[in-house]
Amino acid sequence: MLEHLKTDVLAANLALVREGLVLMTWGNASAIDRASGHVIIKPSGVAYDAMKAEDMVVVDLEGNKVEGKLNPSVDTPTHLALYLAFPDIGGVVHTHSHYATCWAQACRPIPCFGTTHADYFHGDVPVTDRMTAMEVREAYEANIGEVIIRCFRNRDPLSCPAVLVANHAPFTWGKSVAAAVENAFVLEEVARMALHTVALSPTQLAIEDHLLDKHFLRKHGNNAYYGQVGKGDE
Amino acid sequence: MLEHLKTDVLAANLALVREGLVLMTWGNASAIDRASGHVIIKPSGVAYDAMKAEDMVVVDLEGNKVEGKLNPSVDTPTHLALYLAFPDIGGVVHTHSHYATCWAQACRPIPCFGTTHADYFHGDVPVTDRMTAMEVREAYEANIGEVIIRCFRNRDPLSCPAVLVANHAPFTWGKSVAAAVENAFVLEEVARMALHTVALSPTQLAIEDHLLDKHFLRKHGNNAYYGQVGKGDE
Amino acid sequence: MLEHLKTDVLAANLALVREGLVLMTWGNASAIDRASGHVIIKPSGVAYDAMKAEDMVVVDLEGNKVEGKLNPSVDTPTHLALYLAFPDIGGVVHTHSHYATCWAQACRPIPCFGTTHADYFHGDVPVTDRMTAMEVREAYEANIGEVIIRCFRNRDPLSCPAVLVANHAPFTWGKSVAAAVENAFVLEEVARMALHTVALSPTQLAIEDHLLDKHFLRKHGNNAYYGQVGKGDE
Amino acid sequence: MLEHLKTDVLAANLALVREGLVLMTWGNASAIDRASGHVIIKPSGVAYDAMKAEDMVVVDLEGNKVEGKLNPSVDTPTHLALYLAFPDIGGVVHTHSHYATCWAQACRPIPCFGTTHADYFHGDVPVTDRMTAMEVREAYEANIGEVIIRCFRNRDPLSCPAVLVANHAPFTWGKSVAAAVENAFVLEEVARMALHTVALSPTQLAIEDHLLDKHFLRKHGNNAYYGQVGKGDE
Repeated sequence: MLEHLKTDVLAANLALVREGLVLMTWGNASAIDRASGHVIIKPSGVAYDAMKAEDMVVVDLEGNKVEGKLNPSVDTPTHLALYLAFPDIGGVVHTHSHYATCWAQACRPIPCFGTTHADYFHGDVPVTDRMTAMEVREAYEANIGEVIIRCFRNRDPLSCPAVLVANHAPFTWGKSVAAAVENAFVLEEVARMALHTVALSPTQLAIEDHLLDKHFLRKHGNNAYYGQVGKGDE
Repeated sequence: MLEHLKTDVLAANLALVREGLVLMTWGNASAIDRASGHVIIKPSGVAYDAMKAEDMVVVDLEGNKVEGKLNPSVDTPTHLALYLAFPDIGGVVHTHSHYATCWAQACRPIPCFGTTHADYFHGDVPVTDRMTAMEVREAYEANIGEVIIRCFRNRDPLSCPAVLVANHAPFTWGKSVAAAVENAFVLEEVARMALHTVALSPTQLAIEDHLLDKHFLRKHGNNAYYGQVGKGDE
Repeated sequence: MLEHLKTDVLAANLALVREGLVLMTWGNASAIDRASGHVIIKPSGVAYDAMKAEDMVVVDLEGNKVEGKLNPSVDTPTHLALYLAFPDIGGVVHTHSHYATCWAQACRPIPCFGTTHADYFHGDVPVTDRMTAMEVREAYEANIGEVIIRCFRNRDPLSCPAVLVANHAPFTWGKSVAAAVENAFVLEEVARMALHTVALSPTQLAIEDHLLDKHFLRKHGNNAYYGQVGKGDE
Repeated sequence: MLEHLKTDVLAANLALVREGLVLMTWGNASAIDRASGHVIIKPSGVAYDAMKAEDMVVVDLEGNKVEGKLNPSVDTPTHLALYLAFPDIGGVVHTHSHYATCWAQACRPIPCFGTTHADYFHGDVPVTDRMTAMEVREAYEANIGEVIIRCFRNRDPLSCPAVLVANHAPFTWGKSVAAAVENAFVLEEVARMALHTVALSPTQLAIEDHLLDKHFLRKHGNNAYYGQVGKGDE
C-alpha cells in the first residue's frame, strides 16, 4: 500500500538525521495520500540504521492503524491535526533542530531579517501560545496540533511553512514531505542567522515589505522568474 | 573477570571520543558489577586508539586494585563515591564536554528551558558548591564525589542523572554505562541549547511543571507510552 | 568558447559549496574575459553535482546570452554592473555565507579588528544603503549592483574586495574568479571572528592605521615581502 | 642536517592544519636544536599538501639561513626572539586559531575559569601591549617577539606556554614542537570555553588559587600523580 510514498517518508526521515536536524530519535516525518486520506509516518522507537520502507506505519486521519507492525510515532496526532487543518500540505516534519529549538525555547518568533529568510517564509516564523495544564494533561500530542492551528488562523500555511511550538521545537510542512524537509533545513539556517543577527544588533527590525515581497514572490508567486522553468534558485 | 563489562566500559570510553564529548584524554567512563562490588574503569594515560578491553582496571569500592596492569583513572575516587552513594546506578561518565563545562565554569545550574531537556532531566541540572581549600588539598578526587552527593541530598539521582562540578565539568550516570554515555551526550546538547536560549532571552524562566512532568514521565514513568514496548523515543 | 574560463567558473562554484560558503543553491560565481567583454556565469537552478563546464552560460556586458542552453543566474545583472564599474576585476562571487550574511542582516560594516582582516581588506568591509522600494520593484538585480557601486565611490575595489548588501548577503571579487572565491572564504572567517570579538568587547575599536597598513601592504603593496617571490603567505 | 627534527617540524605544521587551527597558510611551527643553536621552520608560501621535510628551512639564531632552498616563514624573527629569551623551550607555534584570535582582537587576557585551563596554563593567558607605530614600521616581526618577552618579564614561560599578541593572534611554545602544538590545541578550546563562560556570566571571576595550583601541579609539578609514570592524563 502506497509503497512509493513509504520510500519518500523513509528518505525524509533519514535526510533529517544526515543533515544534523535530528539527534538521537528527536524527530519524525510523514506524508499524506490525499486520495485515500492515509498518512504514512515513521514508527516509534526504531533505530534509523535498521529502518526500512516497510516499517513505515499507515494510519487514517482518525489515527486508526491501517497497515504496519509497529506503533506509529508518538507525535502522530499532531501530524494528523495539521493534515486536517491545512488541506494543501502533503508532508509534515518535526525536529528538535538546534537553533530553531532555541527560538522556540525563548518563546520568540523569528523575525525576517534578510532575503535568505524571505525566499522561504513570507514574514516572521511564529511561535505558538504556551500550552495550558489542561492542554498538556489530556490528548497532549493532538493539542500541540491545535495550538499550531490557532497560530495560523490568519496565516496561509504555505506562505509560512513553519512554526515554533513554545518551550518545545519546530514543525515544518510543504506540498510534499521532501519540501517539508527542505523547509526544516532552511528554517534551521534562518534561525541560526537570526540569532547571530540579534547578537550584532539586538533591536534589529525585520526587513521592509517591499524587499520581503520581492524575494518571496520572485520564487513562489505566479510571476516567479527563478530557475530554468520560471521557478528555481539563484 | 567481568570481561563483558570491560567491553562495555571500553566501548563507552571510545564513544565519548567519537561523539566529540572528550578531547585529548579529558574524560573517563566506568561501570559497576553490583554483585561483586567491583568497578571497572579506564586506565590513566593510555592513548585511545591503542586501548583494549583488557587494559580496563578493576577496583573494589575501597579503591584497591583487584585486577589490571595499569593505574586506574585519577578520577577513580569520584566514581567510587558515586557508586556508594547512589545504589541504583550502574555506570558513571566524566567529560569536559564544551557547553556543559561552560555552565560549570559559570557556576550556573542549567534551567529546564524546553521539552528536549525535560525528556531526560526532571528539572534543572544542578551545580555543586565551589570546593574549599581544604577539600581541594587532601583527597581531592574523593571530595569531588562528596560535593556531588551533597548536591543530591534532596534529589533522586535517576531523575536527574547529571551534575555540574563548579569551576570544573560535568559528571553523568545511569543504570548502565551506556545510559551514562547517552546522558552525557544529551546533557551537552541541552547545555548548548540553554546557552543560546539565554542569548535570545536572558531572563527566560524554566518551563512550567505540567509540561516538565508530562515529558519526563511520558518517557520514564510507570505509565510511559513511548516506543514499541511502553518506553522508547519519538 | 572560452572553455578554460568555463572550467574555472565551474571550479569556483563547486569550491563555494565544498567550503560551506553556499548552502542549497544560494550563491554563484562568474568570470570575465576582458578582451571580448564576455562574462561566464553559473546557470540558474541546476544541481551542483550534475553541473558541467559546458553548462556555464556566456553573456555579454549588456546581458545578452552569447552561448549556452540554460538561463544564467538570476543575479547576472549584479555581476555585470560590477564588471562595468570595476575595470580591474576578473571574477565576482555571491554567497549567503553564514557570518558575513549576519553582518549584512544587522546592516553593520565589519570593522578591521585584527591582522587576519588587514591581510585581505584595507579597512572595514562596508555595508550598502538599504534599497528603496523603487530600487527593489524594477530591475532589482541590476540595482543591487548600483548600490554596491555607490558604496565604492570613494574606495578602491581591489583594496577592499568585498561588500555586504544590506538585509541580504555579501559579494566579493578579485583579479580572477579564484581570487574572488578566496576573498569569500576569508571574509566569512573574518566576519565570524569579528562577531565573537564584539561579544567579548562590544565597543572594540578597529586597529590603528600603522598596523592596518603594515599588514595589507606587506602582502599586497609594491614592497610586499611575503612568500617565495615577494608575495605569498606566512 | 637535523633530519629527525625536520620531520617533527613538518608533522607539527601539518597537525595545525588537520586540527583546524590553521586556515589558509595562517600559521607556522618551528623547533630548535639547542646544541647547535639551529632553528628549523616552515618555508613561506608553500602549499601544505606539497610540503616535504626537506623543504623545512634551517636558520641560526641571528636569522642567517644555514640550509634550505626556500625562504623561511616571514614570522621567523619572532620565533628566534622567543628561543633567545626562553632558554627552556624547544618549539614555537603561531596560529590564527579562531577563538584565541578573538580574545587577541578584543585585547583581553583569557582568565582561568576552570580546571581545563588550569591543567595547562598556571593563571590567565596574557595579552601583549598594543604595538606602537615605531615597533610596527621597522623590524616588525622581531618586535612582535619583543612585546611577548616584555609580557613575560614576571612570568615563567613554561608555566604559561601561550600568549595573545594584541590585535593579532596567539603564539604557543613548549619543551618540544609537539608540546607547542598541543598547547595551541588546548589554548583554542580554553579560549572557546572562556568566551561562552563570559556569555553566561559576564563578570565571572577566575578560579581560586587552591584549585588552580592543585590542577596545574597535579599534572606538571614535582609531585605530579597523573598517568602511568607519575605524569599523564585523566
